[in-house]
Amino acid sequence: MENGIYFDNSATTKPCEEAVNAAVNCLTENWGNPSSVHALGVNSMLSLVKSREIIAKSISAKSEEIIFTSGGTEANNLALIGACLSLKKQGNKVISFKTEHPSVLNTLKHLEFLGFNIVVLDTEKDGKVNKELLLNAVDQDTILVSCMMVNNEIGAINNISELVKAVKAKNQKVIFHTDAVQAYQKMPINVNDLGVDLLSASGHKIHAPKGVGFLYKKKSVNLVPIINGGGQENGIRSGTENMPLICAFEAAVKAASNVSNTLNYVTELNKYAREKLSANPNVIFNSSEDSLPYILNISLNGYKAETVLNALSLKNIYISKGSACAKGHRSHVLTALGMNDKLIDSSLRISFSRFNTKEEIDILANELFAVTQKLRRFC
Amino acid sequence: MENGIYFDNSATTKPCEEAVNAAVNCLTENWGNPSSVHALGVNSMLSLVKSREIIAKSISAKSEEIIFTSGGTEANNLALIGACLSLKKQGNKVISFKTEHPSVLNTLKHLEFLGFNIVVLDTEKDGKVNKELLLNAVDQDTILVSCMMVNNEIGAINNISELVKAVKAKNQKVIFHTDAVQAYQKMPINVNDLGVDLLSASGHKIHAPKGVGFLYKKKSVNLVPIINGGGQENGIRSGTENMPLICAFEAAVKAASNVSNTLNYVTELNKYAREKLSANPNVIFNSSEDSLPYILNISLNGYKAETVLNALSLKNIYISKGSACAKGHRSHVLTALGMNDKLIDSSLRISFSRFNTKEEIDILANELFAVTQKLRRFC
Repeated sequence: MENGIYFDNSATTKPCEEAVNAAVNCLTENWGNPSSVHALGVNSMLSLVKSREIIAKSISAKSEEIIFTSGGTEANNLALIGACLSLKKQGNKVISFKTEHPSVLNTLKHLEFLGFNIVVLDTEKDGKVNKELLLNAVDQDTILVSCMMVNNEIGAINNISELVKAVKAKNQKVIFHTDAVQAYQKMPINVNDLGVDLLSASGHKIHAPKGVGFLYKKKSVNLVPIINGGGQENGIRSGTENMPLICAFEAAVKAASNVSNTLNYVTELNKYAREKLSANPNVIFNSSEDSLPYILNISLNGYKAETVLNALSLKNIYISKGSACAKGHRSHVLTALGMNDKLIDSSLRISFSRFNTKEEIDILANELFAVTQKLRRFC
Repeated sequence: MENGIYFDNSATTKPCEEAVNAAVNCLTENWGNPSSVHALGVNSMLSLVKSREIIAKSISAKSEEIIFTSGGTEANNLALIGACLSLKKQGNKVISFKTEHPSVLNTLKHLEFLGFNIVVLDTEKDGKVNKELLLNAVDQDTILVSCMMVNNEIGAINNISELVKAVKAKNQKVIFHTDAVQAYQKMPINVNDLGVDLLSASGHKIHAPKGVGFLYKKKSVNLVPIINGGGQENGIRSGTENMPLICAFEAAVKAASNVSNTLNYVTELNKYAREKLSANPNVIFNSSEDSLPYILNISLNGYKAETVLNALSLKNIYISKGSACAKGHRSHVLTALGMNDKLIDSSLRISFSRFNTKEEIDILANELFAVTQKLRRFC
């Protein structure tokens, strides 16, 4: 692999060839503004329609339910702010969880600033939502629940369809949003089976470029836009459409069409990595066995994560400490799960893609072992 | 020109070769997440720093005053919503103008929904702001004035530095925002000379791709973010940075470094177009002589703009009816300027770039003449 051995696919992925080619086509040939009515504009609009159809299909949604955004962060902001502003006459309470991504947690702080009542619940020690705790919090003032599908640091999977059913049984008016950035195209998603009202996804976690994502919005749900203007994206998200990256996103989705097969392959990789790493007496697994296999969080007990990460980087092996977004801060997720500070400070996230191989895992395992021989333990 | 003759550069431009190459480099080689601390991430962060420096320099700003956004629309939304939410304890009044872009006008509607007092003033018949009218509106409750630098439909130029001085002399606390999407890189801009607090710009109007822009924010100004999350862009705009398009934006700015020379060239083109089109008895010029020469708005008196536009499109000549964003609606700008409906319905926007030639103008002028021979006048 020209960029070394890359096990940081939950931070970002290398754009696949198909995505690059699609972007280049929109940069050099089909570069019209989809809002222009002349032939160049119409060609661009036709591409937009096709991209929307293909991406809608990937989650069994309707085309008109897909709102393209500049990424997962914007999708989460639009979902939360848009729903709350739309529903502010019906209630004031928003419920979410301590282990959510900063793009949810900090948007909740913004909503608090705007006057909403924000309740952020604990999760179980394995990172999963406690259904009873959630149901206790849901009341007649509740307008929105936001719960991630897969945790970005440890891979814990929430049973979203079960949670949606339970929440709606208690208060059917509640809008249910799920941040599916780490789940989209990594496990099969059917929005009808899930029953969610809003679902966020990002391109650059699935071999599309950084700078594009989408929000699924069930047809019956109303959102107040957070970016206003020319009325693009059915009036929900204005601004000239980012055609090169939308077309690249479409191409990346098509290129990875068999989600289940790829999941099986990555499950094998994860199993193999667990076997190999188990031989290292310093390794503690922080991700539970039933986590999404794309993410394997470990602690290299006694070794500072930054130091390990830098030592590996010198060998062109790339892994992450916690999440990339939490740079410089102790992981709020691992803290919320009750792990002790020392284990958190030595925690590493290995995150896979379909382009990783067992041979790469062998090299990683060997280097992680070598690191424990060369580096000094911290106390 | 492989895509025909393109005179719709105020809607979008063809990405230049330098921009395409820079994007491809970020898609295929330097694709790390700038927030990752390993070598791939650091390389990406270094590119981000360089892009920010070069773009800051293009308006004589400091690096830390540039906030990358998904485009001009987001920049306008961030400027207006961010400033108002930040200043809501100091006042409630926002002043702008009827001829602004929808990304300003519709954001003002959003601010009205949030409880702000919005005042939208008329302009002069040539599209320029009436300073006295503006000053009459500014009072001690005023927190924000938003005034475009160049109108996107007719090219009218506002004397921003004069307006800033006058407004601040009346109330020095007022934040002054200018939408410079149609001015950036088309006329020299020095934010220190202008005295503005906030300035929006877009990439795809200057041969960078669609999907990237920036907001200049004077260091002393505070904004409440509209997209919250991992704290990128100095905490003002979260979300993994759109590296391919940011680097492409930088490349496009570098490729067009001599703004004054290009302006001279386009001034020549505009003059030539006016000469050629004057020979057509049906042509009425809606842009005044002192407009920015990149935009030439005309009416082909008696002929429906859509029909003319489609007839030209069949000949691979691309111009626009009003602005692309106003698709399907009668231009709010020309309406605000007091033009009669018939002239508005026959109005066409010819917008130039440095890649246009006099030969292309000859062809356009001939085809516009041919159109008047072939098409039926409407009544």
